[in-house]
Amino acid sequence: MIATAPSQPPADPIDILRTLIRCPSVTPAEGGALAYLDALLSNAGFSTHRVTLTSPDTPDVENLYARFGTRGPNLCFAGHTDVVPPGDAAQWRFPPFEGAIHEGVIYGRGAVDMKGGVAAFIAAGLDFAGAHGHDPDHAELPGSISFLITGDEEGPAINGTEKLLRWLADRDERIDHCVLGEPTSRVELGDMVKIGRRGSLSATLTVLGKQGHVGYPHLAENPIPGMVKLLAALKAEPLDGGNAHFQASNLEIVSVDVGNPAFNVIPAEARARFNIRFNDLWTPETLAAEISRRLSAAAGNELRYALAFEPRSSDSFLTAPGEFVDLVVAAIAQTTGRQPELSTTGGTSDARFIKDFCPVIEFGLVGTSMHAVDEATPVNEVAALTRVFAEVIARYFAARGR
Amino acid sequence: MIATAPSQPPADPIDILRTLIRCPSVTPAEGGALAYLDALLSNAGFSTHRVTLTSPDTPDVENLYARFGTRGPNLCFAGHTDVVPPGDAAQWRFPPFEGAIHEGVIYGRGAVDMKGGVAAFIAAGLDFAGAHGHDPDHAELPGSISFLITGDEEGPAINGTEKLLRWLADRDERIDHCVLGEPTSRVELGDMVKIGRRGSLSATLTVLGKQGHVGYPHLAENPIPGMVKLLAALKAEPLDGGNAHFQASNLEIVSVDVGNPAFNVIPAEARARFNIRFNDLWTPETLAAEISRRLSAAAGNELRYALAFEPRSSDSFLTAPGEFVDLVVAAIAQTTGRQPELSTTGGTSDARFIKDFCPVIEFGLVGTSMHAVDEATPVNEVAALTRVFAEVIARYFAARGR
Repeated sequence: MIATAPSQPPADPIDILRTLIRCPSVTPAEGGALAYLDALLSNAGFSTHRVTLTSPDTPDVENLYARFGTRGPNLCFAGHTDVVPPGDAAQWRFPPFEGAIHEGVIYGRGAVDMKGGVAAFIAAGLDFAGAHGHDPDHAELPGSISFLITGDEEGPAINGTEKLLRWLADRDERIDHCVLGEPTSRVELGDMVKIGRRGSLSATLTVLGKQGHVGYPHLAENPIPGMVKLLAALKAEPLDGGNAHFQASNLEIVSVDVGNPAFNVIPAEARARFNIRFNDLWTPETLAAEISRRLSAAAGNELRYALAFEPRSSDSFLTAPGEFVDLVVAAIAQTTGRQPELSTTGGTSDARFIKDFCPVIEFGLVGTSMHAVDEATPVNEVAALTRVFAEVIARYFAARGR
Repeated sequence: MIATAPSQPPADPIDILRTLIRCPSVTPAEGGALAYLDALLSNAGFSTHRVTLTSPDTPDVENLYARFGTRGPNLCFAGHTDVVPPGDAAQWRFPPFEGAIHEGVIYGRGAVDMKGGVAAFIAAGLDFAGAHGHDPDHAELPGSISFLITGDEEGPAINGTEKLLRWLADRDERIDHCVLGEPTSRVELGDMVKIGRRGSLSATLTVLGKQGHVGYPHLAENPIPGMVKLLAALKAEPLDGGNAHFQASNLEIVSVDVGNPAFNVIPAEARARFNIRFNDLWTPETLAAEISRRLSAAAGNELRYALAFEPRSSDSFLTAPGEFVDLVVAAIAQTTGRQPELSTTGGTSDARFIKDFCPVIEFGLVGTSMHAVDEATPVNEVAALTRVFAEVIARYFAARGR
């Protein structure tokens, strides 16, 4: 436990969240969110780094890394302040960038994904710093806590967490464990954590034919029946049955496009695009081979087609249950009274980058309203999440002694 | 036979064709083609009518009707002077609107489809008028010949033959038999005539789903596997086996479109469009019912979909073999030495409109190069086609006495 009593009232995560919501940080815009956090953390004794990352063909993106303490171990909280667009603001009950509180619920774009999570761990971190007199060289400091905040999670995710982690590694800045504050809870705060994620593999399938007039089909070669056959073959058999930590892998055909405006023309080619979310029974390579095998078997010698995999696939990963997972689960159970399910479901997150550097676990608010109109979270949940993160910090350093 | 000897040299169909090719009458442009024919025919004693037809949302289109003689029967030659665009003129061996003659072949857009056919029947008609002293009230005139030339066959075909026929009917202008000069010959002039055409029915199929994230497929409803199932069901069984005068009916799926640019989004709906060319075993109504039945059986209670038929379907038709068909076939056989196949294959033509007014048969040049780069026809073939049409005229009036 921390011996030094807080020298000031605890940080208010609700106030931090409302301030963040008022920053219109629609990806890739910084919107004032990182500048606000930078000032808040600098004043509390954190050393901060604003890192603008660039890449050809994508917007420049601002990011923030802040650390309190110089010794290890370094417990990092990761997250993002960029948000998806609000859509038609007129459809919102309250303006999406106002942070209105109504009947105990705070409304706004990013309330759960994931300015709420950011506000909670920032508040917990400020209290930790405050408990040590805002002095990062405090003699009783048991290690460091840090924040890795990106502005490119909802966008192409090229100038965000992945590069920021490499930027840190280049500076020998070591992170020992990481909690990513994405909204993982399903129905009630604490009912689910994510200890891994499925991988993602995308591809485009093109079936080639020969253009012609519908009145003379024998002179043409319609690619669409062939496409129908290949797509049916892709979906005919399950990829696997899942395992102890993962759901079954799943293939979704996300688009089929021909773009032929005429009713009297047989088109020259048809394109389909699909994405596979896969578990640790596969690698991108073995899965690509299986897809190629299925298509080849269905096509026989009759169909001409091309299959192109997208370059940015991600592997599945698992932070195996053990000391760090147990610690976070215990903190959740103590604070919320719930035993979280250890899940690997759902979409990808920046955890796919962090897992290459240190063990990572994801925990945050109930995600139901993310990306939707009237995104909102109860004030009480944000406060409870702040207590969970504070408990994670306390247990993390208690477990390592001082 | 005509008793009066020609008072001047016979009309030159090659000269007429080259003049027509030099008119850039890319649909819907008149390009000078109809004005040229109007002058030519007026000077030869024809009464001519330039009819500009209009309709909301489509371009105004010029058309021409010309008649020599006032008594019946009225043998009509129908055709069009509009042409499809030439595409990249640089890819042509000779400029597409020049009418170059090289080694006995005349090159140019419309050479076979169907300025060649128009030139041939115009030349035959001018000779017929010349044989009667260019006097439409000539005492020995056995009836009338007429030309129905549209500028809207390659376009939407709304302000063309269909309306022009109604315009004639409104004026009690009667056509007794019609020869449509489309390029029906397959390999050699005279090897095929068209005595009917299949019908055409088009529809759009929409499968409805529920949009969502690929990581959470249980919260979404991907419409694409349902679309694959329905399209497979449409093509699973032949519609029929054809009959004595018609090929089997054929369904072509001409487009499938989702338009989803994202790999991580399950789309809300998928659309497919298809066209059916059908024989006289079906009407548009019975065929629509069969399509609806197939989709309904495949969809069961699981799939939500909508099926919308296009308003402009056309029925199949057959000009039954008999006196008029025999007459045209005999004229072809005598002139070319070939016994033409009586066919109903291929795309639709303006014959689908003419058949509601009188028996119609289609005959013309070898169509291989139609709509292609380097569209061309041998000079000799155009001359032979002119002789066929002259023989049709001679036999038509001989059969009816004078």
